[in-house]
Amino acid sequence: MTAKEELRKLEKTLYAYRYANAVIDYDNETVAPYDSSRGRAEAVEVLSRVEFDLLVNDRTADLLNRAEKEAKESGDEQLLAEVRELRIEYEETAKIPRDEYRAFSRLCQESMPAWVRAKQNNDFDSFAPYLEKIVESVKKQAEYIDDKKDPYEVLLNRFERGLTIEKCDEFFAELRETVVPLLAKIKEKGRVINTEWLDNDWPLDKQKELSSFIMKTWGLSPAHCAIGEAEHPFTINFNRNDVRITTHYKQRDMVSNLYSVAHEGGHALYELNIAPELDYTVLSGGSTMGIHECQSRTFENYVGRSRDFIHFLFPKLKELFPTQLESVTEDDFYKAVNKAEPGLIRTEADELTYPLHIMVRYEIEKDLIHGKLSVKDLPKAWNEKYKEYLGIEVPDDAHGVLQDIHWSQGSIGYFPSYALGSAYGAQAISDIQKTKDIYSDIRKGDLSSLSEELKNRVWKYGCLKEPHRLAESLCGGVFSPKYYTEYLKNKYSDIYF
Amino acid sequence: MTAKEELRKLEKTLYAYRYANAVIDYDNETVAPYDSSRGRAEAVEVLSRVEFDLLVNDRTADLLNRAEKEAKESGDEQLLAEVRELRIEYEETAKIPRDEYRAFSRLCQESMPAWVRAKQNNDFDSFAPYLEKIVESVKKQAEYIDDKKDPYEVLLNRFERGLTIEKCDEFFAELRETVVPLLAKIKEKGRVINTEWLDNDWPLDKQKELSSFIMKTWGLSPAHCAIGEAEHPFTINFNRNDVRITTHYKQRDMVSNLYSVAHEGGHALYELNIAPELDYTVLSGGSTMGIHECQSRTFENYVGRSRDFIHFLFPKLKELFPTQLESVTEDDFYKAVNKAEPGLIRTEADELTYPLHIMVRYEIEKDLIHGKLSVKDLPKAWNEKYKEYLGIEVPDDAHGVLQDIHWSQGSIGYFPSYALGSAYGAQAISDIQKTKDIYSDIRKGDLSSLSEELKNRVWKYGCLKEPHRLAESLCGGVFSPKYYTEYLKNKYSDIYF
Repeated sequence: MTAKEELRKLEKTLYAYRYANAVIDYDNETVAPYDSSRGRAEAVEVLSRVEFDLLVNDRTADLLNRAEKEAKESGDEQLLAEVRELRIEYEETAKIPRDEYRAFSRLCQESMPAWVRAKQNNDFDSFAPYLEKIVESVKKQAEYIDDKKDPYEVLLNRFERGLTIEKCDEFFAELRETVVPLLAKIKEKGRVINTEWLDNDWPLDKQKELSSFIMKTWGLSPAHCAIGEAEHPFTINFNRNDVRITTHYKQRDMVSNLYSVAHEGGHALYELNIAPELDYTVLSGGSTMGIHECQSRTFENYVGRSRDFIHFLFPKLKELFPTQLESVTEDDFYKAVNKAEPGLIRTEADELTYPLHIMVRYEIEKDLIHGKLSVKDLPKAWNEKYKEYLGIEVPDDAHGVLQDIHWSQGSIGYFPSYALGSAYGAQAISDIQKTKDIYSDIRKGDLSSLSEELKNRVWKYGCLKEPHRLAESLCGGVFSPKYYTEYLKNKYSDIYF
Repeated sequence: MTAKEELRKLEKTLYAYRYANAVIDYDNETVAPYDSSRGRAEAVEVLSRVEFDLLVNDRTADLLNRAEKEAKESGDEQLLAEVRELRIEYEETAKIPRDEYRAFSRLCQESMPAWVRAKQNNDFDSFAPYLEKIVESVKKQAEYIDDKKDPYEVLLNRFERGLTIEKCDEFFAELRETVVPLLAKIKEKGRVINTEWLDNDWPLDKQKELSSFIMKTWGLSPAHCAIGEAEHPFTINFNRNDVRITTHYKQRDMVSNLYSVAHEGGHALYELNIAPELDYTVLSGGSTMGIHECQSRTFENYVGRSRDFIHFLFPKLKELFPTQLESVTEDDFYKAVNKAEPGLIRTEADELTYPLHIMVRYEIEKDLIHGKLSVKDLPKAWNEKYKEYLGIEVPDDAHGVLQDIHWSQGSIGYFPSYALGSAYGAQAISDIQKTKDIYSDIRKGDLSSLSEELKNRVWKYGCLKEPHRLAESLCGGVFSPKYYTEYLKNKYSDIYF
């Protein structure tokens, strides 16, 4: 066997374990009976131990060296990228002791249902012991990976390779300078947007039809993409031919499902459009979370909340909800889904207040990892920051610190990716518009020109390109947050003044 | 580590792989996108290869010997049973070459969706190449396992240890002698049962409420048992705290879902009531398929289709379907769900014609494995037998040879378990009634006295007892089909004459 063949065999084996884990996760979060976590945790612990052993052993280091040599000799760019990505993973994982890795997998399996229960019962205290263990474990992991570096920066790099605390601080400062005064000005002298008509009964079967309509418009085929229901909507990819999105339906709220499907659909398009040559290798999946969130937030906002898309969508909405929308115009609808209003829930925030939700989480995570904040003081810190940045009172933890699933999954350092993704997207759209009039297509419900561009700039590469190169390819140049801040200023000025 | 500890570790590892496989199967048959089989087959092939290697290696044979010795010395009955069951599995699996085992797992992954498509499109030819390979592979497997024995008997033993072709032939002959003349007599001079009112619109949301009501009545908690939808209803157990049942909803048919839930609920009760001491061992699951089908067919028929249960259920049905049942009485409903009428579909057959459906499959399987029938001639043979035994013409393969999922899963030799399970159940109910008046409880919707008995006779043991002893414990003595034939005679005479 050549080193390439051997490496591919290892990659396919890792694929199989990841496939199994993904199906187990998806099941857990969509349809599993609510008290079934123990047997799942037992199974996941065993599987993650085997997966760990498959990756971390003396043969892998040697194999990576041999494969790299082979790739260089033959000029095999893809193989070289496989070695690069697998080596990063190997080195990061190898530094974490086997028992720590295993215990952490198990902890996450147990803490997710604990979070669901805590959120349902508005009971932060019942979740706190899990979160304490998670914080402790990720801190230790960060130290194992690189004890020279700020541990929170190590965690940020798990989701966005190359991201630093310095860059984050600058990015959020620039955002704050745009958002905070703009929001104040809107409050003071912006026009009033009436959204009372949204508080109505929106039949679930019609909302489900709307989900199918969005998926079809996005170009998501039911042959390869299924939709499920989950407490916290997410997307999970099994492979290039099998991606699942999830949503949640609320009888009194049609906007929540609409934009969940729009958002998750963006993630799904990315995973479904990776080049077939990368199948079953470590390259066959989306790149950093920032680049991933860029796809989802582009479809949610730059498409889904645009004037042109609303123009296309509105007749369909009228057809599905004739009585509810009887006296509502296209412009009313556009303004309603773009109303800038500080709220409690991140996933339901408008584009302007959204970055403030991220800032709260970014600062809290940083303090948690730096030991400046303890888990027990978390609700208080959360509520104070919501008061400070968004000017609102948090009535309970279910609508506060317990709203997001991420920490229960062990994902600390993820949140900045959402804001970064939005910023990548604003720059990408601006760059694409230089040569293509995508919005006149979107106005007709035709998303193919946008998708074609994103496929060529990002989707097809999977993890083939290094993240910083991929971000450049996406943005059409070096990343700058100014496209995002300009976009926000222009959009919200147009709406409010 | 003691041999016991080592064995338990192996058992828990096997549990983890089976858990993963079960979740993958469940996902596949309930919610997976329809063209997602390739990536699943790749993953399952890898996982089944690893599982094979974990079980079949030189250490296992030695470990089994050491654990057996340890169990005998310490008088550890459970450990002895673990060794017994694992050894049977080990020996059977070890005889099948690794590549054959692996190719077969993959084949089954691919043939299930091929069957779904073939059934949907009424296109037997598209499924035939898969079935040919399956027949060929199971024949080879039977030969590897025991080349001295009739290969179909080897396959029967996979599902019902100890079952012989001779016993099967006798059993089905006795059934035929009861069913065929009784059915002829009913046709000639039985009273006419009007079921025209069944052909109505039965709203799906009300049918779903009915499913929940049945599950609650059976004693199935949503904490540990979830219900999904599948083309062909089935039950799958992940562990003692997590069992999934499935059903299918039809707008014009409320009986199909009702008895699917009743049936699958019986399987689920069994798996959910296995003793906790057996968790994560090879004993923690139901025993033979005959004993399993006994639980499902007992709850479907001896409970679900009994006069006493219908008495309890009918007010609920009136509440859910007031207009559809406006002029229907409890007795009308009882007779309608017990109408003896040769039909095309096994899963929708009444109790009297049901064994004839099984006989058709038994004879066809035997001929397929004995090489007396080729896959291409299967539809013809199927249709002829339906004409001969049930007196009906099969209009197309979707309602004929393509109706069951079993063969596409590689399960050949399974069907006799259904009839055997019914016969076990009739004897068990008869024996239980000697000391407990279960039907007066069932009349009140209280199934606890029956469940308590079944738990003590069967459920709690998992695979601890050997199948023939478990069958005796279930039946309260040596098995005899006469309880079943007597039951059918009495029930149907009462209904028709």
